[in-house]
Amino acid sequence: MSLLIVGTVAFDAIETPYGKTDKIIGGAATYIGLSASNLLEKSHLVSVVGEDFPRETIDLLQSKGIDVEGLQIKKGEKTFFWSGKYHRDMNTRDTMETQLNVLETFDPIVPDSFKDAEFLMLGNLMPAVQQKVLSQMNRRPKLVVLDTMNFWMDHFLDDLMEALKSVDVLTINDEEARQLSGEYALVTAARKILNMGPKYLIIKKGEHGAMLFDRDRIFFAPAFPLADVIDPTGAGDTFAGGFISYLVNGGDLSFDGMKRALIHATAMASFCVEKFGIEKLLEITPAELEERKLALAELTRV
Amino acid sequence: MSLLIVGTVAFDAIETPYGKTDKIIGGAATYIGLSASNLLEKSHLVSVVGEDFPRETIDLLQSKGIDVEGLQIKKGEKTFFWSGKYHRDMNTRDTMETQLNVLETFDPIVPDSFKDAEFLMLGNLMPAVQQKVLSQMNRRPKLVVLDTMNFWMDHFLDDLMEALKSVDVLTINDEEARQLSGEYALVTAARKILNMGPKYLIIKKGEHGAMLFDRDRIFFAPAFPLADVIDPTGAGDTFAGGFISYLVNGGDLSFDGMKRALIHATAMASFCVEKFGIEKLLEITPAELEERKLALAELTRV
Repeated sequence: MSLLIVGTVAFDAIETPYGKTDKIIGGAATYIGLSASNLLEKSHLVSVVGEDFPRETIDLLQSKGIDVEGLQIKKGEKTFFWSGKYHRDMNTRDTMETQLNVLETFDPIVPDSFKDAEFLMLGNLMPAVQQKVLSQMNRRPKLVVLDTMNFWMDHFLDDLMEALKSVDVLTINDEEARQLSGEYALVTAARKILNMGPKYLIIKKGEHGAMLFDRDRIFFAPAFPLADVIDPTGAGDTFAGGFISYLVNGGDLSFDGMKRALIHATAMASFCVEKFGIEKLLEITPAELEERKLALAELTRV
Repeated sequence: MSLLIVGTVAFDAIETPYGKTDKIIGGAATYIGLSASNLLEKSHLVSVVGEDFPRETIDLLQSKGIDVEGLQIKKGEKTFFWSGKYHRDMNTRDTMETQLNVLETFDPIVPDSFKDAEFLMLGNLMPAVQQKVLSQMNRRPKLVVLDTMNFWMDHFLDDLMEALKSVDVLTINDEEARQLSGEYALVTAARKILNMGPKYLIIKKGEHGAMLFDRDRIFFAPAFPLADVIDPTGAGDTFAGGFISYLVNGGDLSFDGMKRALIHATAMASFCVEKFGIEKLLEITPAELEERKLALAELTRV
């Protein structure tokens, strides 16, 4: 089983009520890859950075089993940079600065050795780029998961709608589900979105948990109740990486398999927000992960 | 096992995106009592109305096993009236008008025959009035549940803090838990609130479910995902009535017993919001209730 991950590799500068960082390593694909590395020995990355991106970080990704053959390093250019500030409720944030840099002209090239990947994680990125990656595969992967956000709905809705036709699982948050469907009630929103292409829809509700829908069923996974959320950046990507890596690892792509993947994804996301940036993702022990998943199961056990 | 319910019996005028009502029957104790009547043959009410309150409604309550000996009917006075308008998200509402009327001078009198009640539900009301009811009991009930709201925290915090010392279970919503504790994270908020007196805390999160806390444990009950929420009025009271009636009925006051009560409460609240006012509470069939509770259990079953 092989996993191909597409998404940004970036610099972030983050401010939360708990503190402020300088430029630290971020990006959807970074979080997805590091999240997946907690279950998988190997995954493959397609992304782009500038010449300013630290070699040590690329080495770090490789040491976590993330194959970087598909990571383009653009000479004389700068890495994508995002800076944001979270408010007290940690559910809302202001983007302070976005420098697209290398992303502006990103033309993803899937190395030949990745083109047979059975699992494809299309991390949050321009829908046309996500689509372009899918079109380069030798055959359609067994499972394609697409993560996106309101920005693409605002500015590239047609491309996004086109991409949605080809995916198995879509992950978005509750506000995005409302925006995409034009429906307030999530049950109704899900029904409409499932008519746009995806066979499964995951609605991420942050501290309120996550919901998995197919045409007939709904599953709900509560979030782990944390006393302190230090930095929510990357939680959704970590969630997506946890979700798909669990499916790669277990191979059960049924609704029941996806339920278990959702619990794993929830646990991973709960770790992510406990420290700034990717820090916590590098140090989760298997025992800690197991303990958290048990605690999550216990939370709803009657 | 006997249940005493204290709270308002009122007129409401409600506007939601689904429509608008004239004066209809409302009030915390009304919803609590009707919710409880779905499990209990008998309960006892302490409340007050004006001369304008319809005799048929009092008859209706009686027909549902709600003993109205403790319902004061004030000659020449008017019933408490509240009018509110809900926004699209149904989680926020504006109070358009409040006429306290008979509530202004409400002096609760617990009939002798109710003074040995083993379960006491102190519905949302002035904390001093809630306290006054408790003090009239012949002995401390086996279980005292108190529901309250931000209004009392804003204006009668000392009285509320005093009342909290004597209760077993406090039910409030997430914003109120944050206000009462001064803590944003619900886990931390719960810890602080449990130090104020209650042995158990229930945090109601509307469409995001409900959480039960004691000092060591957390249980989470998701809300039933409804396609249409027609009118959220009384959902919290219906929840409280469902919760306590389940405990009266089952008698298991352990944490595990309360978990099951929370599921029942969640199911009852989900019915309440399906129609305007108390309408749906009058027509729930046992089969429908059973079906909804099964669906709720299924929602988190892995």
